[in-house]
Amino acid sequence: MMRATSTLLARFQHPAQVVAAGFAVAIALGALLLSLPAATAEGVSAGWLNALFTAASAVCVTGLVLVDTEAHWSVFGEVVIAGLAQVGGLGIMTMATVFTLLVSGRLGLRARIAAQTETKSLSMSDVRRLVLKVVAFSLVCEAVTAAVLTGRFVLGYGESFGRALYLGVFHAVTAFNSAGFTLWPDSLMRFVTDPWICLTVAIAAIVGGLGFPVVFELARLWRQPSKWTVLTRITVGTSVILLVSGTLVFLATEWRNPATLGGLDDGHKLMAAFFTAVMPRSAGFNVLDIGQMYPSSWLATDLLMFIGGGSAGTAGGIKVTTFGMLAFIVWTEMRGESRVNIGRRRLPETTQRQVVTITVLGVALVAVSTYVLLALTPYKLDQVLFEVISAFGTTGLSTGITASLGTPGHVLLAVLMFIGRIGPLTLGSALALNRRTRRYELPEERVIVG
Amino acid sequence: MMRATSTLLARFQHPAQVVAAGFAVAIALGALLLSLPAATAEGVSAGWLNALFTAASAVCVTGLVLVDTEAHWSVFGEVVIAGLAQVGGLGIMTMATVFTLLVSGRLGLRARIAAQTETKSLSMSDVRRLVLKVVAFSLVCEAVTAAVLTGRFVLGYGESFGRALYLGVFHAVTAFNSAGFTLWPDSLMRFVTDPWICLTVAIAAIVGGLGFPVVFELARLWRQPSKWTVLTRITVGTSVILLVSGTLVFLATEWRNPATLGGLDDGHKLMAAFFTAVMPRSAGFNVLDIGQMYPSSWLATDLLMFIGGGSAGTAGGIKVTTFGMLAFIVWTEMRGESRVNIGRRRLPETTQRQVVTITVLGVALVAVSTYVLLALTPYKLDQVLFEVISAFGTTGLSTGITASLGTPGHVLLAVLMFIGRIGPLTLGSALALNRRTRRYELPEERVIVG
Ligand SMILES: [K+]
Ligand SMILES: [K+]
Repeated sequence: MMRATSTLLARFQHPAQVVAAGFAVAIALGALLLSLPAATAEGVSAGWLNALFTAASAVCVTGLVLVDTEAHWSVFGEVVIAGLAQVGGLGIMTMATVFTLLVSGRLGLRARIAAQTETKSLSMSDVRRLVLKVVAFSLVCEAVTAAVLTGRFVLGYGESFGRALYLGVFHAVTAFNSAGFTLWPDSLMRFVTDPWICLTVAIAAIVGGLGFPVVFELARLWRQPSKWTVLTRITVGTSVILLVSGTLVFLATEWRNPATLGGLDDGHKLMAAFFTAVMPRSAGFNVLDIGQMYPSSWLATDLLMFIGGGSAGTAGGIKVTTFGMLAFIVWTEMRGESRVNIGRRRLPETTQRQVVTITVLGVALVAVSTYVLLALTPYKLDQVLFEVISAFGTTGLSTGITASLGTPGHVLLAVLMFIGRIGPLTLGSALALNRRTRRYELPEERVIVG
Repeated sequence: MMRATSTLLARFQHPAQVVAAGFAVAIALGALLLSLPAATAEGVSAGWLNALFTAASAVCVTGLVLVDTEAHWSVFGEVVIAGLAQVGGLGIMTMATVFTLLVSGRLGLRARIAAQTETKSLSMSDVRRLVLKVVAFSLVCEAVTAAVLTGRFVLGYGESFGRALYLGVFHAVTAFNSAGFTLWPDSLMRFVTDPWICLTVAIAAIVGGLGFPVVFELARLWRQPSKWTVLTRITVGTSVILLVSGTLVFLATEWRNPATLGGLDDGHKLMAAFFTAVMPRSAGFNVLDIGQMYPSSWLATDLLMFIGGGSAGTAGGIKVTTFGMLAFIVWTEMRGESRVNIGRRRLPETTQRQVVTITVLGVALVAVSTYVLLALTPYKLDQVLFEVISAFGTTGLSTGITASLGTPGHVLLAVLMFIGRIGPLTLGSALALNRRTRRYELPEERVIVG
């Protein structure tokens, strides 16, 4: 046990391989289960591509689908999908939390592991305690979400308790883990005027996607913002700005669109626009018909999906923290300041370069993938870019072209979901943990920019 | 005179206003001239919007047009357009060269103004000498280009000497200044198999768009790359990579497209693909029908147009130097190095932040403008993004929708051309020249990225 422990900890020096291997194994096992005849409603195997794509989509908590979940899969298949989403969500939260604390050099309230963080390692008991905390937190959030949803399905829609509980638990799991799978062919569109469903799902998605370290700090210190860490400040600040501006953009753009907001009264317009602004962070449910939204709304959604949610949670994308720090770097430079200061703390130069690296590599990956998918399919940039960013950001929203992208397109999306899920986290951690230094410095040379 | 001189130099402390005012005045005067009845072929005023748009397009050396240049304007109008392009090209080259030398603290071979650069000022004689050098360089390049084109029009196409000279000079001016205007409704498509026209125009565009400081350093030191400054290394290296990869991408994508490369033999395919890879840096002529290219080629062109050409030349975009340095920053971070070194020189932290700022603001401007133009027009993302980046990068390529974007769309494009032309230069200079420093430093706090 002790040897296994030290091996595990040694591996944290190169976390990318561990995380990637873990997710790959989960996807392979999931694909195996989903390719069983018992996994489909018709009792015949779903085929390797559909099984693999669905397993990748579930483990990477994305929610892109090639087939209608309820119609195609059996109850066993649906349970496997929810289980994979749970494993993927817990896995990424646990890994990301451990890495976050390694990188920030802070573990909860106590600074008692200061010695270990110097050598970039945590004791096994610390890791075990953390994992238990993450699991407990997830299960409690999912239980509360499931209870509200179950009650609503019984009381508001006349479902039997058993069916309501099944629906409640399934969607609590997919909502909290930002997995985006639903058991209705139109996602949550039928609930567009139901605040019990809309707001419960939205809140579960926000909490799950905010990230464990931030949620716990908020639980302790929500009354004392002056004591918040920089991570919490940026996450909360950027999230509020993106949610408010996203809601306003969708309200303004879709207000008169008869196929989306047009038919709703003003209060429901507001709720639907808010829901639509929450879902790109990256839960991926929808109450409006994405395929009927205007291309300008698609572009706004693209940007929100690329940014995603909070670090060390179930959300994907480059993360609101990365985006917020990028904005701060630009703002600092425009003011002519020589140091990037956020909330009385200075942002290290290395962190600044990590922000730039994650963002640039994300843009590059999206650009190249979009080029390839454009060349492979007859679709245009609007829909292809949306699909690519939805996969990269593990969002799962779609304009409706997922199923018809062909085998190479499906493989590309599956790879994007995988990279999008583990890439920013492991890359960020690897960059933060591995650092070489030169013994000497070269002379500077200033170069004109722009 | 001396007072005027010192006032002028004082203004270089805040160069943005001077440059913006100069370009605005040139555009206003150009619009006035182009709105005269004598400027159109029919002898009736072109109307304020068309005159203003065309003047902005010419002064900002973009080349987007609402009407066919040859058919709509009189010879007087065409001379005004070429004159505005010359003024705009010379203006930006002069300004940019002065700023580049201010920023880099280096002026030609001699370091005799070291004292002045310390205080960020140049003597009036230095500025006058520089302006003369830029003007002489431009005129010589244009004369050589015009001579080759004129000869070809006489010998290859049977034009009279007068007409050939007119065509030769007009296109030499628009090519060297990256202005993109032509006197044929199909740009240079009729010359797709003519290396004399294609390669001459491409070389003129590359030289003009490489930037005065780099061209002069190459003229002196082209045999000794080891002595090149970082500016020249990045500009040449990034340009070669972008030209080669652009050519390969267009070859691969359009090889079988019957409406573009498909009908050409292999050698002409290569020349046309190379020409198509050169023109986004930001001359904006085309020998292939842009409207018939595949959306994947449009996306590749979008990226090349956004990057643009060299600093302190006639090219637009964020510049290949900015892009190259961004790539170096990312590469450095991925290797875990703590300092960004390019060619035995260290890139200062402030320059790194300028790179990020210019790039992020460029992306933000393009994203917001694309959103607005999507909402204003019935066109989709493919074409709208292409048009917006073409205006921002002062490229002038179009998929064919420019004329039908409506008045608000035209005003937006004109504003984008203006910002795209002076924005990166003045912003870059302002960032480099204005720098506040804090007396004390705040404690660092590391934040997880990604
Ligand atoms: K999702
Ligand atoms: K141009």
